[in-house]
Amino acid sequence: MPGALTLEEIVSRLGGRVAGDPATRIRQVGSLESAGQGEIAFLSGAKHRAGLAATGASAVILSKEFEALTPLPRIVSDAPYLYFARVSQLLNPLTVQAPGVHPSAVLGKNVKLAEGVSIGAGCVLGDDVTIGEGSCLYPRVVVYHGCTLGARVIVHSGAVIGADGFGLAQDDAGRWVKIPQIGAVRIGDDVEIGANTTIDRGALDDTLIGEGVKLDNQIQIGHNCRIGAHTAMAGCAAVAGSTHIGRHCTFGGAAMILGHLTIVDHVHVSACSVISSSIRKPGTYTGIYPSDEHASWARNTAFVRQLAKLAERLRTLEKEKKNNA
Amino acid sequence: MPGALTLEEIVSRLGGRVAGDPATRIRQVGSLESAGQGEIAFLSGAKHRAGLAATGASAVILSKEFEALTPLPRIVSDAPYLYFARVSQLLNPLTVQAPGVHPSAVLGKNVKLAEGVSIGAGCVLGDDVTIGEGSCLYPRVVVYHGCTLGARVIVHSGAVIGADGFGLAQDDAGRWVKIPQIGAVRIGDDVEIGANTTIDRGALDDTLIGEGVKLDNQIQIGHNCRIGAHTAMAGCAAVAGSTHIGRHCTFGGAAMILGHLTIVDHVHVSACSVISSSIRKPGTYTGIYPSDEHASWARNTAFVRQLAKLAERLRTLEKEKKNNA
Amino acid sequence: MPGALTLEEIVSRLGGRVAGDPATRIRQVGSLESAGQGEIAFLSGAKHRAGLAATGASAVILSKEFEALTPLPRIVSDAPYLYFARVSQLLNPLTVQAPGVHPSAVLGKNVKLAEGVSIGAGCVLGDDVTIGEGSCLYPRVVVYHGCTLGARVIVHSGAVIGADGFGLAQDDAGRWVKIPQIGAVRIGDDVEIGANTTIDRGALDDTLIGEGVKLDNQIQIGHNCRIGAHTAMAGCAAVAGSTHIGRHCTFGGAAMILGHLTIVDHVHVSACSVISSSIRKPGTYTGIYPSDEHASWARNTAFVRQLAKLAERLRTLEKEKKNNA
Repeated sequence: MPGALTLEEIVSRLGGRVAGDPATRIRQVGSLESAGQGEIAFLSGAKHRAGLAATGASAVILSKEFEALTPLPRIVSDAPYLYFARVSQLLNPLTVQAPGVHPSAVLGKNVKLAEGVSIGAGCVLGDDVTIGEGSCLYPRVVVYHGCTLGARVIVHSGAVIGADGFGLAQDDAGRWVKIPQIGAVRIGDDVEIGANTTIDRGALDDTLIGEGVKLDNQIQIGHNCRIGAHTAMAGCAAVAGSTHIGRHCTFGGAAMILGHLTIVDHVHVSACSVISSSIRKPGTYTGIYPSDEHASWARNTAFVRQLAKLAERLRTLEKEKKNNA
Repeated sequence: MPGALTLEEIVSRLGGRVAGDPATRIRQVGSLESAGQGEIAFLSGAKHRAGLAATGASAVILSKEFEALTPLPRIVSDAPYLYFARVSQLLNPLTVQAPGVHPSAVLGKNVKLAEGVSIGAGCVLGDDVTIGEGSCLYPRVVVYHGCTLGARVIVHSGAVIGADGFGLAQDDAGRWVKIPQIGAVRIGDDVEIGANTTIDRGALDDTLIGEGVKLDNQIQIGHNCRIGAHTAMAGCAAVAGSTHIGRHCTFGGAAMILGHLTIVDHVHVSACSVISSSIRKPGTYTGIYPSDEHASWARNTAFVRQLAKLAERLRTLEKEKKNNA
Repeated sequence: MPGALTLEEIVSRLGGRVAGDPATRIRQVGSLESAGQGEIAFLSGAKHRAGLAATGASAVILSKEFEALTPLPRIVSDAPYLYFARVSQLLNPLTVQAPGVHPSAVLGKNVKLAEGVSIGAGCVLGDDVTIGEGSCLYPRVVVYHGCTLGARVIVHSGAVIGADGFGLAQDDAGRWVKIPQIGAVRIGDDVEIGANTTIDRGALDDTLIGEGVKLDNQIQIGHNCRIGAHTAMAGCAAVAGSTHIGRHCTFGGAAMILGHLTIVDHVHVSACSVISSSIRKPGTYTGIYPSDEHASWARNTAFVRQLAKLAERLRTLEKEKKNNA
């Protein structure tokens, strides 16, 4: 754990400008509400002014427009949230697990671990797994045979990388015939994978996760998917098999992307929305059915199954109107 | 496993009244359909009368209004289902795993386990984890460093408590900058956590799970959430980060609660409903889009994207009507 | 891993007819796009003609109608995809883990493993678990006490079989009283269970998974469910407690089936659809709310909560029309 830094030392490393005492010592970050002596908080917008006035933090990160709102020592930055992230990285390690392989981990044949890799307790790595420099697998991660992780990848507990994709053909009797999944999973540098997330191996070719992709917890990535670099998905999102997603996309929690689709770069899908056809145009896409008080929901939803009829009745009225005119 | 009890012994412990032979011996609970000799079943309502008539159970728990429906020995109670739960607890242990730490479990430094704690095979507890009296972690649970569990907490296999929350800032180039997650998770007494459920540690402050909260399987609780006491969530529900939920709430399966919301006490969210704004009033909230035969669904759903136009056309007709009147 | 086969050897085992050189040697399957020397690909339909023309595969499996489209050695079959699955099974093992119990696995008392069973690293099997011939549990599977798996069952990493169902009664103070879950899980032959899938033990009677059922990753099966033979569910589907599902059904990804329902044989539920009442008639059922560009979604969705009012206004216009006629 790195030690304390003065505001002056922080801006000398990260840029920005100090207002107030540059010798103020900071040893940790905190929220406006709970930060205390030696901690630095940040102001993300005008609505948190009250918190700023009441904060016990020793210093604050904020943008120029709010600079005059507090007499506290402060760092002025164009992007306070990003600045805060970087300060936190100065004061805290990105991962808390020491390099090395825990004795309870199980490694298959021909596993290649680059320098500084940390393999937590109870991890299981199949044969021919390769893991790049400085990557950290927290306890109880499984990586099936033949999969590859890049450098500085963080994988949280319970994630399963490279299990068989869901590949089945049906015989005449309606029984399922398993298609061996002979592809693998290849994960780029600087990827983070959340707890209990699953990424399936490809049926024939590999499933690909681009560099800088961030996957939250309990995400499911089907076989043969390709996720472009710097795309982020919040918890419980899922991508069905063989879908190709572009770069710099974001997916809200529980967003569901059906299979065999193509989604271009810079697409943003709202939480809980279902994408059932390809998206060729950057933008934000949403499909949340609104919740309501139960009785009101019941009253309105009864008409969802009559929408076509309602439209037909409307058309009839319009026609009669026109004929009468 | 506790031994058999007579109906008289049961009511002496749990209240209620025996009708029929109080010396009837009960060694286990069962369903009306499958209970046999020495087993006690319960009648939850009038629609299970046929099952009552046909049951092979030695005794039945039911309410006063149904008392005359069977000649079997019975316990009469105002709340037969609750009574049944208590009888089952008399006859069966709440957890089946003996106290103690399984030799294959891995404990970090400064882990504090209170009396009677049971840590199953393959569990991994990080440094500075504290677990209260009588708690039971089934095999392969991970608790990250610094997290605290109360007394009599039950955690099922595969659950991950205290993995990093999904905290990211974006730089000018659209790359994600990880924000170290320096909070922890604090879990109250008498909480139960289902298999493969994940509860993320706080970004700055702790994620809080109140006493008596019951979480089913595969639930995702984002960082900084606070779940009030005695709230229950069914399987696959998810709560995005920084949402505060009140006491005595219930969430149906796969209910999705977006982030940074406040939900008051005694709110009930139906299964598969998405809550996208704060709820200030107790009550039941629902947002299920109705399924239908595929062709009918396709016919009606085509008009969802035309609702605003349909409403506009309706308004036009109404205006013309008014002008003509 | 089985060795290479000629096309002639393949059809002698699997049927179909060779066109072109029957001595063509095949050592692996591949996709049209990436297959190379010694690999066989398949053509699933007319839209992949271009891929067929460009393929580097040594041979192709296709139906009679496309036979003339390529000069490559080929196998003609009525069901090319099924045929491809069978060829892949000739050339690849169904599971990659050798029989035997990994030394890091933990087995309870009275566990019965039939011949050829493979138990991966870090698996935990409770007391009285029985597993049938040739079944394969990949690393870190947990099977709770008393559960039974049939023959040739494949279970992927992180799956949890037999954790407690979510059975709770509520007392007068709104506290939850746990109902001990005394049933188990019984799984038939030839079932496959995906990574991090959870199947809960029954409250009183057993949860039943029929033979040939295929469950993808992160599926949740509640207590007391019965899933009929040869039913398949894609990733993230969930079935709430006590629902009985028929044979030969299919469920798309994230399909949600509420509790205490009955679904007959040969029902197909589309991805992301919610089934909230029993289905008595075979067929395809869908309930996806359409996603759209965000602004368009917002415009239209605002009227969902006014559907009943819109219908009322329409009715009013119709009445006036009629009265005026």
